Amino acid sequence: MSLKRLMEEYLPAIEDELHQTIAQVDRPGLEMMHFMLAYHMGWEGEGAGAEARGKRIRPLLVLLSSASAGGDWRAALPAASGVELVHNFSLVHDDIQDQSPLRRGRQTLWTRWGVAQAINAGDALFALAFIALQRMEGTVSPQAALKAAQILQEACLTLTNGQYLDLSYEGRSDLTIEDYWPMVSGKTAALLSACTELGALAAQAKSDVCAAYQRFGHLLGLAFQAQDDLLGIWGDANLTGKSAESDLISGKKSLPVLFGLGQGGAFARRWLEGAIRPEEVPGLAEQLEANGARAYTQESAMELTAQALEALKDTGLQGEAGEALFSLARQLLQRET
Amino acid sequence: MSLKRLMEEYLPAIEDELHQTIAQVDRPGLEMMHFMLAYHMGWEGEGAGAEARGKRIRPLLVLLSSASAGGDWRAALPAASGVELVHNFSLVHDDIQDQSPLRRGRQTLWTRWGVAQAINAGDALFALAFIALQRMEGTVSPQAALKAAQILQEACLTLTNGQYLDLSYEGRSDLTIEDYWPMVSGKTAALLSACTELGALAAQAKSDVCAAYQRFGHLLGLAFQAQDDLLGIWGDANLTGKSAESDLISGKKSLPVLFGLGQGGAFARRWLEGAIRPEEVPGLAEQLEANGARAYTQESAMELTAQALEALKDTGLQGEAGEALFSLARQLLQRET
Repeated sequence: MSLKRLMEEYLPAIEDELHQTIAQVDRPGLEMMHFMLAYHMGWEGEGAGAEARGKRIRPLLVLLSSASAGGDWRAALPAASGVELVHNFSLVHDDIQDQSPLRRGRQTLWTRWGVAQAINAGDALFALAFIALQRMEGTVSPQAALKAAQILQEACLTLTNGQYLDLSYEGRSDLTIEDYWPMVSGKTAALLSACTELGALAAQAKSDVCAAYQRFGHLLGLAFQAQDDLLGIWGDANLTGKSAESDLISGKKSLPVLFGLGQGGAFARRWLEGAIRPEEVPGLAEQLEANGARAYTQESAMELTAQALEALKDTGLQGEAGEALFSLARQLLQRET
Repeated sequence: MSLKRLMEEYLPAIEDELHQTIAQVDRPGLEMMHFMLAYHMGWEGEGAGAEARGKRIRPLLVLLSSASAGGDWRAALPAASGVELVHNFSLVHDDIQDQSPLRRGRQTLWTRWGVAQAINAGDALFALAFIALQRMEGTVSPQAALKAAQILQEACLTLTNGQYLDLSYEGRSDLTIEDYWPMVSGKTAALLSACTELGALAAQAKSDVCAAYQRFGHLLGLAFQAQDDLLGIWGDANLTGKSAESDLISGKKSLPVLFGLGQGGAFARRWLEGAIRPEEVPGLAEQLEANGARAYTQESAMELTAQALEALKDTGLQGEAGEALFSLARQLLQRET
């Protein structure tokens, strides 16, 4: 119950903070640029609304981390909007890189306004992320505000490292699960660990507590991704609301796929021949399972989930926000959909 | 002489600082990503060397501003590398946006590694710019380090505003010189004004002195661009080493072109019909001159140059670095090549 109640309190404040940041582009002559950003954020244009906005998991993590570390969640709002803007900058560029026509059922920026404007819109969100974060100056000491900027900058660099690896794996035939963790540490875990660490920092938590929150966010990211990859092949398509086979069809270098490639058997040979057709998916999923990929992924997800929840306990989280953070972590990690 | 001497002192330190920053990506598994960045910076790969590196005008402006404001130029090195990395991030993304195959005679990142990796390399340079700047923490007060970050962040946002305008002008038939200044303020002047302001800030100059340096950088940017646009059509091709006609052929929305479009005459009609062929260039350049575009651009350049040099005097610049900064400004503004 506490998660639901706190989300009702936090989510409107997060949207306000995001609006306030993006309003910096709402100037004469820049109306269409502002619209592009507001469209991407799910506020304007066709299909705008809660569905288009996404779940705002990252800013929620920031605020819940901050409150559960004993801080006033409002002091962490600049960090919450900063991480959400970084996440959205990366989505805009990802969509171009992956040539994805749709995101959350709506046209992506590059399909609607072209690659050039979409690259620039992503760059603007990147700049706005740091402008948003800088408001921490008003809520914490100058030293802590500088530390916050450093945390987010390094998360951004690690994000680009992970993205580099992901892109570089395309068409490679020599991948193994060893190649999975550095990619996912960059693509998923870096920003989540920044969320939880920034929350603790905004609460002026001691450095060992900040480190525990950071560790929790990192493990949460790895565990979440392993679970997501498991469901991406063996999830119940009816429950997930998307084709359970999509990870095999999209060519995503997920944990079971890299495990399978590392075996160098029939699955690996087929994977390297090119795009997988929907009718091949059940057979390939069985082949992967027979290779041990499902069991390995399941074990990894379980092990990482246990570690993440352990790390969360180590933070010494408190109060209603502590309960809510625990609920959110469990929802993210123990979902079957 | 002082400019030459100081450049010999500053340029190797700038390269060192840049190397040190980009070395953060020099890690196992990221070798090719590091190479992409080092290639773009002009350090590695075919054609590497002084020519490929560019002139490092922006970091020189930072250091000369700092020293001429009475500071130790070494304290400004983090800012110098920060602005150069922002400049280079924008070049990498510009080259994709403009589909330019070459930069400084070498293949651009996107032609060599594809659009996806080039977008990511630009993003990495963006993140590294702020990581570089953050080292100001070690050279100035926390408050000044935060102010420095804010200056660079806002310059980046203004840069994306200018880029948005530039891209949005493509194919538009209703442009006038009114549309020129906001674009150039963003694309050229924003980063130059950040350079000079950051230099003064690193020297711990008072806020009115910082404001004067900022104003100088802004006017320097506008004056430089007006002069560049003049030479881009009427410069002596033999002296510039590039076709004097290139601005008309590349379709650049330069000051004389927007002036000409604002007249709505024969030039405007021809411009809107599509790409201009080399054999049309002399006639169109004459037409533009007859329309008053050359005189207008020349006057603008002269007026802005005078204002920029006046603003430079207002900074109260001192010593050998002051002389050198004055020389650099004059070289940039009064060049005929």
